[in-house]
Amino acid sequence: MKNIEFYHVKLNNGYWKLKQDLNTDVSMQSVWKRFCDTGRIGAFECSWKPGMENEPHFYWDSDVAKWIEGASYILKVSDNKILEDRIDNIVSLIEKNQWKDGYFNIYYTVTENERFTERNNHELYCAGHLIEAAVAYYEATGKDKFLNCMIKYADLIYKVFMVDKSAAFVTPGHEEIEMALVRLYKCIGDKKYLELAGFFIKNRANNDKDWYCAPNAKAYYCQDHIPPEKMDSAEGHAVRALYLYCGMIDYAVEAGDKELIDACNRLYNDITERKMYITGGVGSTFMGEAFTVPYHLPNESAYSETCASIALIMFTKRMQELGNSSKYADVIERAMYNGMMDGISLDGRCFFYENPLEINLKNHSINRSTTMEEHIPITERVEVFDCSCCPPNINRTLSAIQGLAYAYEDNTIVINQFMDSTLNIDNKCVSVKTKYPIDGKINITKENVEKIKVRIPSWCKNIRCDCEYTAKNGYMEITEDNVNIEFEMRPMFVKANPKIRSNRGCTAVQYGPIVYCIEGVDNGDIYALSLDTKKNITVEYSDEYSLNIINAKGRRQLPCADLYMSAENVQYEETDIKLIPYSCHANRGESDMLVWINEV
Amino acid sequence: MKNIEFYHVKLNNGYWKLKQDLNTDVSMQSVWKRFCDTGRIGAFECSWKPGMENEPHFYWDSDVAKWIEGASYILKVSDNKILEDRIDNIVSLIEKNQWKDGYFNIYYTVTENERFTERNNHELYCAGHLIEAAVAYYEATGKDKFLNCMIKYADLIYKVFMVDKSAAFVTPGHEEIEMALVRLYKCIGDKKYLELAGFFIKNRANNDKDWYCAPNAKAYYCQDHIPPEKMDSAEGHAVRALYLYCGMIDYAVEAGDKELIDACNRLYNDITERKMYITGGVGSTFMGEAFTVPYHLPNESAYSETCASIALIMFTKRMQELGNSSKYADVIERAMYNGMMDGISLDGRCFFYENPLEINLKNHSINRSTTMEEHIPITERVEVFDCSCCPPNINRTLSAIQGLAYAYEDNTIVINQFMDSTLNIDNKCVSVKTKYPIDGKINITKENVEKIKVRIPSWCKNIRCDCEYTAKNGYMEITEDNVNIEFEMRPMFVKANPKIRSNRGCTAVQYGPIVYCIEGVDNGDIYALSLDTKKNITVEYSDEYSLNIINAKGRRQLPCADLYMSAENVQYEETDIKLIPYSCHANRGESDMLVWINEV
Repeated sequence: MKNIEFYHVKLNNGYWKLKQDLNTDVSMQSVWKRFCDTGRIGAFECSWKPGMENEPHFYWDSDVAKWIEGASYILKVSDNKILEDRIDNIVSLIEKNQWKDGYFNIYYTVTENERFTERNNHELYCAGHLIEAAVAYYEATGKDKFLNCMIKYADLIYKVFMVDKSAAFVTPGHEEIEMALVRLYKCIGDKKYLELAGFFIKNRANNDKDWYCAPNAKAYYCQDHIPPEKMDSAEGHAVRALYLYCGMIDYAVEAGDKELIDACNRLYNDITERKMYITGGVGSTFMGEAFTVPYHLPNESAYSETCASIALIMFTKRMQELGNSSKYADVIERAMYNGMMDGISLDGRCFFYENPLEINLKNHSINRSTTMEEHIPITERVEVFDCSCCPPNINRTLSAIQGLAYAYEDNTIVINQFMDSTLNIDNKCVSVKTKYPIDGKINITKENVEKIKVRIPSWCKNIRCDCEYTAKNGYMEITEDNVNIEFEMRPMFVKANPKIRSNRGCTAVQYGPIVYCIEGVDNGDIYALSLDTKKNITVEYSDEYSLNIINAKGRRQLPCADLYMSAENVQYEETDIKLIPYSCHANRGESDMLVWINEV
Repeated sequence: MKNIEFYHVKLNNGYWKLKQDLNTDVSMQSVWKRFCDTGRIGAFECSWKPGMENEPHFYWDSDVAKWIEGASYILKVSDNKILEDRIDNIVSLIEKNQWKDGYFNIYYTVTENERFTERNNHELYCAGHLIEAAVAYYEATGKDKFLNCMIKYADLIYKVFMVDKSAAFVTPGHEEIEMALVRLYKCIGDKKYLELAGFFIKNRANNDKDWYCAPNAKAYYCQDHIPPEKMDSAEGHAVRALYLYCGMIDYAVEAGDKELIDACNRLYNDITERKMYITGGVGSTFMGEAFTVPYHLPNESAYSETCASIALIMFTKRMQELGNSSKYADVIERAMYNGMMDGISLDGRCFFYENPLEINLKNHSINRSTTMEEHIPITERVEVFDCSCCPPNINRTLSAIQGLAYAYEDNTIVINQFMDSTLNIDNKCVSVKTKYPIDGKINITKENVEKIKVRIPSWCKNIRCDCEYTAKNGYMEITEDNVNIEFEMRPMFVKANPKIRSNRGCTAVQYGPIVYCIEGVDNGDIYALSLDTKKNITVEYSDEYSLNIINAKGRRQLPCADLYMSAENVQYEETDIKLIPYSCHANRGESDMLVWINEV
């Protein structure tokens, strides 16, 4: 199965069209503005001097590079002079300020630090994102100035690490460059970049112990605990880990490295079967923004970084090409509608970095009594973070979101995600009309396409289809040219594996792929509520959320003064419970919030 | 209501007799031996020099002082030459090594540190414990050498803090000396010690910000956020806080300070109505060993220090004298049978410092992926800790445990705790025969006592009594000389206030005052279990625990590979569930453990 690139697909309507337009019209502008305000864009002038404001940070290149990558995807499918001018200006600055030997980094150029001496300073991570942005911009516009700068930089990195071996470390502290180098190789065909990607992958766990990245970090933190081909457990910083796994697949596919692919399969199963939130969030602890032990998925302190959900989508999209099961697209669906979209406000201007599954406002004063600070995620989205990796990561993902919808396989077009859209590729056309995920009705027409495979969402128990089909590996195989399918959507009460202690006694609610939550603003004291899964539950469309909301029934434990009481003495009253999509929470001010709700 | 001192009461039989004998015969010896091995006893020689092993720590005086206090209580009611010789030897060393001006501290005497310059070095805390030990030893034996040494030391402290004002700080970082000084005042009658106690209490929150005790600690941490008379929320390090509150009552009662007593009432309600575990544990976070926000009572990471349960008993015992409600004795009962007794192993040799309400063994490898260390309590009791405050605190509490049983009030003897025992005081005699808490049957005989008041335990719903009684403020008032009472014990399913999020959907089980738990060693995967509170449940006596165990029914969720599943697809099997007393857990090796159990 080969994913079909976003630019062959046009979104016509519906949820993702709305979100993509919002991204183009609002979020891209909003992030740009905040990047200007914080000095990130100006930093490409490389004129900062000690004492001036807005001292560049060592990850700023990557923030802007991701924005450029997103803008490039927009330019690939439509003209946008503003975006193109902005990029061209930055590229001019890159060309102007690139070192003679090819080096480019806005932080190292203006500070006293020595190049390639500090493994944790994201130098190669920034290089990777710049390379990806350059390839994307070249592929969008045909302009090669940026690409040529980055080829020169990549050549320098090759020389430093593989020829001179003059760097103080062997592999990057924050992975990313691995997949960027494979992308560069696939763009221009020079095998040395593939070789360099392989070097960075194969030499993990080969660094001195002194180079475990962050202070006090352990080998696990930056995937230095064992060689990648031996890995079977997702460990450490979740985004670093997933970016590495992406690079491992990219490299392995090109280099034919079966050991690495086997490792990726093991890692993928470890994540999706043991370490993933119902939202598709991953990386459950803020301590190192890391994966922890299997089934340790706390809700209130969930880190579940927006970037990690995006990275899981990236990893899964790659895995999807190697397998033939619908399970990959199921995970992508889970992550994109929930974990990722929680990362951006309804107005498109503000972002979450962390995406906890519970907010208990009263606990936010917890640190006043303590010596150490307990970390509690913020409760409202903000326009920019000091470490602002997530906003432009959403930008670039939404700019090309339709690239997740289709794939091909021999003479077959595979529909993995249901977006109201038209696919045109090599004289083949597939058109999907749907309000999904508002309802499960999907009309599919095809031209010059022998067969289509339509994913059966894992949440779906009843399929209505007006033609014959064969079900295989979670896909419906259909030869008809015009077909109407309905994946019956009903509110589904979800139980967690009992090993996930944090969800005990609770139920989550899904409608189609959408995970729901309750907020205090709708329901008062949400901790006193229990959902009655046997009572009538109704679903209605909400203009505010462009998704459905759910009205359920349950009971509320009456307030009591005692800390503990005999079960016989507990009193309840019947109550309505309003659920909204998890991704839409925190759009009406601070509020308590729960995904996993007590059950009657 | 005035508590009756332990030495008027003789334990004859039953749970507390067993535990007190074990303390005298085993625990006191075991702690002594470990204190010898670790250099704590030898340190009173004050001959340590840099480069030698066993460098004294600044809290070592207090560890040994608490052991002496416990040994003194034993000596008060029985001869014990070994204990007395040990104390006399230490006292000789104290006398020998006391500074000319009265100063005594084994750490400051042998290290380079300047006296009274470092607020967080427990100097006054050690002085307080030494003073308490000296008073206890004097009251037990009539020997006054130790007492005289400590009077001299107290006089020096008075001079340094109240006359010369030469210390670098105004009040101790770790409270304790306040109640010790009142005790010294009550022993020898010199008001200056009461005055000094008042000084240390009234000047809290009067220190420079630089003196917030531990590095990075905040004012709240050591009760420096507001003056004590204004306090209404228990804050910071739980043991420090509770020792302060004890000192506040002791001082306020003697000095007639109503404002401080009102503050203690507010603080007491805050703790017992909002911040206490079902076990009577308090201080829910390891970060600063502190109280946190109301209803924040996590189970797995519960700090719930043994010393804090003991300190809660001490505070409550004082509050009991000021009120007329049985609620105080209820809290003492909760804390002594559960939170405190969890702190010591069944064989009397090993101790817990922290007493979590959940153990999830798999989470103990959680830190391998992370940068910071997540703190998880240990899973088996140990013989000694580096910071070994808890073991001798249990020693001194068990040595005088019968001091919690009785009080008097005008012409009435009050029975607060049910221990098989005889009270003899001023020609009055009360005798209690009972197997409590194995069952609720209590026979009480009295001589020369007009009236008795018998606490009605808050967990009790049915009382059988063979004579007339009046119920008032949670007590039965009885004039008969021989009465048989039965507080009907039935397994009770306990629900937590819904504001305690960590207990949602769960039930705890109590039988009488005993809180139960399930262990993996009995029940396999305890996370898959749900207790069926509607099914038959049986209770049987266990010789191993000297308490009952409980056999209940429930269901086990069958293992499944999926992380999340539709509720309809969850499968269960019926199963037996064995519960043991919480205080007896972790006596058979490492095991998963839960107090709050999923409910069917």
